[in-house]
Amino acid sequence: MSTAAITGVVPPVCTPLTPELDVDTASLERLLTFLIEAGVDGLFVLGSSGETAYLTDQQRASVIEVATSVAAGQVPVLAGAIDMTAPRVLSHARAAAGAGVDAVVATAPFYTRTHPAEVEHHFRTVAAGVDVPLYAYDLPVSVHTKLSAQLLLRLADDGVITGVKDSSGDDAGLRRLLRMRGVRRPVVLTGSELTVDNALANGADGVVPGLGNVDPHGYLALARHVRDGDLKAAAAEQDRLADLFGMVEAGDPARIGPSSAGLGSFKAALHLRGIIDCPATMPPQLPLTEQEVATIRTLLDRAGLL
Amino acid sequence: MSTAAITGVVPPVCTPLTPELDVDTASLERLLTFLIEAGVDGLFVLGSSGETAYLTDQQRASVIEVATSVAAGQVPVLAGAIDMTAPRVLSHARAAAGAGVDAVVATAPFYTRTHPAEVEHHFRTVAAGVDVPLYAYDLPVSVHTKLSAQLLLRLADDGVITGVKDSSGDDAGLRRLLRMRGVRRPVVLTGSELTVDNALANGADGVVPGLGNVDPHGYLALARHVRDGDLKAAAAEQDRLADLFGMVEAGDPARIGPSSAGLGSFKAALHLRGIIDCPATMPPQLPLTEQEVATIRTLLDRAGLL
Amino acid sequence: MSTAAITGVVPPVCTPLTPELDVDTASLERLLTFLIEAGVDGLFVLGSSGETAYLTDQQRASVIEVATSVAAGQVPVLAGAIDMTAPRVLSHARAAAGAGVDAVVATAPFYTRTHPAEVEHHFRTVAAGVDVPLYAYDLPVSVHTKLSAQLLLRLADDGVITGVKDSSGDDAGLRRLLRMRGVRRPVVLTGSELTVDNALANGADGVVPGLGNVDPHGYLALARHVRDGDLKAAAAEQDRLADLFGMVEAGDPARIGPSSAGLGSFKAALHLRGIIDCPATMPPQLPLTEQEVATIRTLLDRAGLL
Amino acid sequence: MSTAAITGVVPPVCTPLTPELDVDTASLERLLTFLIEAGVDGLFVLGSSGETAYLTDQQRASVIEVATSVAAGQVPVLAGAIDMTAPRVLSHARAAAGAGVDAVVATAPFYTRTHPAEVEHHFRTVAAGVDVPLYAYDLPVSVHTKLSAQLLLRLADDGVITGVKDSSGDDAGLRRLLRMRGVRRPVVLTGSELTVDNALANGADGVVPGLGNVDPHGYLALARHVRDGDLKAAAAEQDRLADLFGMVEAGDPARIGPSSAGLGSFKAALHLRGIIDCPATMPPQLPLTEQEVATIRTLLDRAGLL
Repeated sequence: MSTAAITGVVPPVCTPLTPELDVDTASLERLLTFLIEAGVDGLFVLGSSGETAYLTDQQRASVIEVATSVAAGQVPVLAGAIDMTAPRVLSHARAAAGAGVDAVVATAPFYTRTHPAEVEHHFRTVAAGVDVPLYAYDLPVSVHTKLSAQLLLRLADDGVITGVKDSSGDDAGLRRLLRMRGVRRPVVLTGSELTVDNALANGADGVVPGLGNVDPHGYLALARHVRDGDLKAAAAEQDRLADLFGMVEAGDPARIGPSSAGLGSFKAALHLRGIIDCPATMPPQLPLTEQEVATIRTLLDRAGLL
Repeated sequence: MSTAAITGVVPPVCTPLTPELDVDTASLERLLTFLIEAGVDGLFVLGSSGETAYLTDQQRASVIEVATSVAAGQVPVLAGAIDMTAPRVLSHARAAAGAGVDAVVATAPFYTRTHPAEVEHHFRTVAAGVDVPLYAYDLPVSVHTKLSAQLLLRLADDGVITGVKDSSGDDAGLRRLLRMRGVRRPVVLTGSELTVDNALANGADGVVPGLGNVDPHGYLALARHVRDGDLKAAAAEQDRLADLFGMVEAGDPARIGPSSAGLGSFKAALHLRGIIDCPATMPPQLPLTEQEVATIRTLLDRAGLL
Repeated sequence: MSTAAITGVVPPVCTPLTPELDVDTASLERLLTFLIEAGVDGLFVLGSSGETAYLTDQQRASVIEVATSVAAGQVPVLAGAIDMTAPRVLSHARAAAGAGVDAVVATAPFYTRTHPAEVEHHFRTVAAGVDVPLYAYDLPVSVHTKLSAQLLLRLADDGVITGVKDSSGDDAGLRRLLRMRGVRRPVVLTGSELTVDNALANGADGVVPGLGNVDPHGYLALARHVRDGDLKAAAAEQDRLADLFGMVEAGDPARIGPSSAGLGSFKAALHLRGIIDCPATMPPQLPLTEQEVATIRTLLDRAGLL
Repeated sequence: MSTAAITGVVPPVCTPLTPELDVDTASLERLLTFLIEAGVDGLFVLGSSGETAYLTDQQRASVIEVATSVAAGQVPVLAGAIDMTAPRVLSHARAAAGAGVDAVVATAPFYTRTHPAEVEHHFRTVAAGVDVPLYAYDLPVSVHTKLSAQLLLRLADDGVITGVKDSSGDDAGLRRLLRMRGVRRPVVLTGSELTVDNALANGADGVVPGLGNVDPHGYLALARHVRDGDLKAAAAEQDRLADLFGMVEAGDPARIGPSSAGLGSFKAALHLRGIIDCPATMPPQLPLTEQEVATIRTLLDRAGLL
């Protein structure tokens, strides 16, 4: 399967858990099947939405095993190889590659303070040590480093990275990257949920929306409208999805953090839609209250998703 | 061995590497023996100075195995269990406990954005899942969360943590913590290299100085002076060590990051002193130049350490 | 003049200086006339692009006097009232209102650490003390506070603010704000240079582009294309302007800061275009080198602006 | 009066206000007299504790007029010249110098993003434009720039600055600065409230403690103990002052910011002690509740200050 194929709508798959906080493989299979049947173009497991920061290595391996098995070549599978520095990233990347994923995704180093030259060395070290394509994950909110367009293009020109997942929220930077790159090099996927119509219209190759777990059909419709040149319909769909995305604000920020609120809302919605058995998230994330879940139910209902 | 024993001078042990970037167990044994014979009161492996962010799980296991074997009950061994969230921290902590360390050390969550209530839940989850004492590692420069004195005292009162390693650089906060705690609860170790005389005179129970790899005798003399009430001699020793600590500025910040410069200088110094065979650091850290190493040699020479 | 009129293309006017670092009123008149004749819809003086952070109160007064005199009711004039807290902001706002500006623009407090409730109190205090419309300036890169959509809409609903200048770079947040507000309330202007076609197509009422000093015709054409529904032409114009915006990267970041590089490039371009007499910026900003100016000349030449 | 005299205990004087939020000159005179009679070595007006960020230029002028008049050469007066960049700082500095202060105090630029070379140029520009001694105010929490020891020593060597007020909270950095400087060059004052005994014992020339408004006798006793070489008595006094400093935590952080809580507590305490007539702070700071003031009263009572 050619790596160029990893474009379009590629949801960052949530990781359903049992009440005992094991990976719920049956629910994960159901979620993956739901997404594939909806028509998604690829699957990104072990990203932020997949709670990768909270999963043990065994749980990560379990997720990859289920995903590659369910995908079975129908759609490509990307896997996050999220860890602090190149040597640890490589451990995850090699395990994922060995388990049959089509590409791996890595961020800049974190926890340790790193010079830009070392960030570049990090990506080169990872790419040299694994034999599947590498995507650079630009996620400054988590790793406190922004990947510059210059760095990304240099890495792409040198064959180090195949693509970029841009979750920086810096849409002006994304636009410049799209303007500066040559044709299709590197593949650029936006991690946005809210400005996807713009990103695709501006030339992005795809989108990795957390909300796409809950409403893949919405993002697929949006992408189709852009492809058809109907930007008005795309904007209307984007607006509908933005309203639905309000679910991430259901959780009270005085009580829980943005991860608990965001991933908790996606899982609550998947549970309410009957796709996964249990909405639990990993500790130390805290659960939503019944009232907060009721808000999410209202949003789903209004969106016709119940 | 009682956990109360983990006080005094407890160097955060560097992890010597072979030129091929494996753990150099022979050099590590030599370094541990050098520190124990110098008279240190404990050993902290897999901290920031131990390049824990760069070591694979196998390498971490190897470090612990060597450390517990060399320490052999002569001095207590603390091990960092450094990872993003409670479930992953627990994997490391259990492995370390199983390998015989006397206590484990964990930071607040990182990579993911976490509410204060979730930070507390994190430490409680870790402590509940491992049966050796837990130290909280306050390291905002890496994890972007400051542990408040209120939180630390609450965790200590509830028996969740046995102690604190304060590497926050916030000496006023350290002072308040020391003032607010009851007698010996929790144990408080400072991670400072430069204000150790003050910290010990103000009531801290010990110090975990990266530079203590290179000059353990200096920190031991400093601690002895404070115990003897000779603050003038302690200050003079602290000043001498501060001059020696200038080695972390040998590396050019226009070229490499603070980790490469700091850990690189400690390893260069250990190599120059003949204690370890190879000064290599893990990628993506970058090596010091010959000229930068020459600066370090001059500092060691001036300090009478060659 | 109705405040609703302050929409469209509203350049944040640069402040030309003499070599002695006085306000060059003749050049300022020429620049204002150039912009008005180009057809801009309003003028924003004493914003970040106007070097307001560097101008004394007398210089600020001089800028306003020239601007209101040249504008003379042809286009509305907004004036920045940029200072640390409400009482100081009010001094500037009252002086500007007294000198005849149509609206004033204020950021959240800075220098002092401020609770969200105090940020709200700040805007309410300013609005209550001045009798021209108030725009909220969302500029987290300078003031280290992000104004939430909820706050902005509450302030607009209560008649505290008439509009928002969004220079946050958070295009997803801008999109949500546009989605959440009612019709035309508040007026929303984007401070972006690079995603203006998207912002206008998504419902923003106008744009305040620093690069609009140099090429107002470009932004006016872009806005016209969006109004005409020709998003393809708008995107092409945006791409052309993005290339021209490359001028802000002419200055070497190893030598000077982003203010020196950005404002320096706009002034160099205005000087090269013959609109202002001298490209000087205020200290402690540092000047561009001849070679850096040559880069800017090339960009202008390529854009057909020489 | 020689600038070398500005050492010792130099409180950053609060600015008492009337209920109408004018400078309460009678209360300010009383406060200044109280401090002078207590024996302070100098007065620092228009610092952060003086609410300088909230005062209009007229109010700033009024504060300086009262301070120089009450001090009348008995003790030196330093005045903050706090603004965004060199040209605006100079306006304040010249006004203060013209009104007879003995030295002015300026931070690094803020609001604008500034290269280290520009920070240096900023201080050189200010010093060249005013004919009283200049102190550099290291206050990263407000200005988001840390002044390096290297920069401060270079500026001192070149006669640009006479001294440093270090409110960075980085006690290790302060220690290095004290170690690196020559004898008495530059003068170094710590802005700490909580580690003053250490700072003075380590060679700092003085202290500028906000809490010194409320309890100048405490800091004077502490400084005397250090001078007498009785570090145990100094530490005990420091501990007593640390407990009293708990007043800054009386305000609920869920409701108000650290400025409202900190400055509000000092003013509440001065009001409870009968030194100023009204505890009001400038907007948008929010007032303490009655219950919060009661907590402060308890602390004062326990300290024997009522």
